[in-house]
Amino acid sequence: MKLKDIGEFGLIEKIKQTTSIPDGVIGIGDDCAILPQDTLMETLVSTDMLVEGSHFLRSDVKPKQLGWKSAAVNISDIAAMGGKPLATFLSIALPPDLESEWIDDFISGYSECCTKYGATLLGGDTTSCEDKICINVTVLGTCPVGSAKLRSTAKVSDLICVTGNLGDSAGGLKAILEHRPRTEDCKRLIERHYHPVPRVVEGLKLSKLEGIHAMMDISDGIASDLRHILKSSNVSAEIDLSKLPISDELKAVWPEDLYNLATSGGEDYELLFTIDPSIISSISIPFTVIGTILPNNDNNTIQWIGSDTVFMGFRHF
Amino acid sequence: MKLKDIGEFGLIEKIKQTTSIPDGVIGIGDDCAILPQDTLMETLVSTDMLVEGSHFLRSDVKPKQLGWKSAAVNISDIAAMGGKPLATFLSIALPPDLESEWIDDFISGYSECCTKYGATLLGGDTTSCEDKICINVTVLGTCPVGSAKLRSTAKVSDLICVTGNLGDSAGGLKAILEHRPRTEDCKRLIERHYHPVPRVVEGLKLSKLEGIHAMMDISDGIASDLRHILKSSNVSAEIDLSKLPISDELKAVWPEDLYNLATSGGEDYELLFTIDPSIISSISIPFTVIGTILPNNDNNTIQWIGSDTVFMGFRHF
Repeated sequence: MKLKDIGEFGLIEKIKQTTSIPDGVIGIGDDCAILPQDTLMETLVSTDMLVEGSHFLRSDVKPKQLGWKSAAVNISDIAAMGGKPLATFLSIALPPDLESEWIDDFISGYSECCTKYGATLLGGDTTSCEDKICINVTVLGTCPVGSAKLRSTAKVSDLICVTGNLGDSAGGLKAILEHRPRTEDCKRLIERHYHPVPRVVEGLKLSKLEGIHAMMDISDGIASDLRHILKSSNVSAEIDLSKLPISDELKAVWPEDLYNLATSGGEDYELLFTIDPSIISSISIPFTVIGTILPNNDNNTIQWIGSDTVFMGFRHF
Repeated sequence: MKLKDIGEFGLIEKIKQTTSIPDGVIGIGDDCAILPQDTLMETLVSTDMLVEGSHFLRSDVKPKQLGWKSAAVNISDIAAMGGKPLATFLSIALPPDLESEWIDDFISGYSECCTKYGATLLGGDTTSCEDKICINVTVLGTCPVGSAKLRSTAKVSDLICVTGNLGDSAGGLKAILEHRPRTEDCKRLIERHYHPVPRVVEGLKLSKLEGIHAMMDISDGIASDLRHILKSSNVSAEIDLSKLPISDELKAVWPEDLYNLATSGGEDYELLFTIDPSIISSISIPFTVIGTILPNNDNNTIQWIGSDTVFMGFRHF
């Protein structure tokens, strides 16, 4: 059997089976692992790899944008648990004939993002790869003991909420790949693709509210990511497609493909969270209610109100 | 200017300049970063990337060996500071048509090493890469506050010591690349290349002795690695080539290339440390004295006693 037949989640399941997690530690299955630090604080750790050809095309992305994005998508994992970013570690494999200016710009974008969110670059590894750029970032964060928001804590009747708009990043990527004319709308979508904003401030505010039950960031689209919450929490859900927050720019550029981009495009790096309906008025950040958590219907599925399509989310293999 | 003209250390210097390290934290320049944990303990973090074609050839290395080695070279960085390994995070980019058996064997070797040294696999990232396997491991460890051994603390008159033998791994790699007949000696060198043993027990013992001044692990060969200690500590050194610990296997297979392999081959993953001569009899692990720390001679150079060659160590670019 080939890897593509097992799929990403099959692979993660294989890896999970070989590891036994000590008491007091949360391992594979959330946006970050959680390790005890002292009696007051816990350490959050997450890691993400970006490979040329799979995650970006060198001819399209500016090195400064790629540097920012490499840091941002990792810091987003700390935001997803409601943590405070602390430090990053950058491993990078580069072709020996790459221009040194490329590296300078990459590091400049990377450092800008780290500085903005307080995640100091503390180490890493530099090595060569004949023909491809490969980047891995590990991020450490911190949060008060027991305050990290998990995927496994959604409750029946919770409202399902998201920050920001969905689908802009995927709409920007589609515009790049299909060589769309660079209208102002199109440029804004592309900017959203290359310059994701980790929701650190929002995550920290949400982490302080007890009625926020489950939380994660949206990296593969809600169709895929919400399923992680449903499976971990053993519930199901309904999503009202008419309620999805969709930008005017996305409506203008891709009117025929809105629901697919907004549910399955991925790389939004917005927060997806479930709340006790009674706390809705105590949430002090902009957000949109898009659905409801339902009792488990045997296989943790999502009912899409407003379409017969079953959206699947982005697949890595 | 191209990356290959700047070199690995030029690149690291560029990265270092963009980051400002908070008080109480040690960042780029040692085997691990050190972060405060609580009043008693500190957290150690290190990360390493292995790229197909640069670090290994898929046709030569067995996936189980590669899994072991990916974990071992990272755990070795914790050993290098005298720390206790705690957790690892594995990012891996794989071609979609890779056989699932390959992955199973890789994970089996990886887990075996993690389990042996107490470094639980707590998370990671799985993604695709069309034609190359790319692996990144981040390892976390812990040590009592102030007990981590650094590169910057070597003192004039210290004896320079190493654990184990030098050059076996490089001799094994050379045997693979040059298709040497697989004699018993040759097989043992190749085993040393594919199955490095992180010196965790030895590092922990050495970390308890105050007279151990500087310490690191040998990944690029002492010719390169000792220079890091010399530069950080602002000293120079002499190494007596006749004292280098060289195995009978290496002497049998590569009699004409011993000094080059032992000083510049790399991937030994032995410990390199400097000691106050007065504590030599309190060291309870096997080790060899190979030289002496001297006052700085303006450019932190190594005098090689027994050869006119200036050995340089392994270069990544």
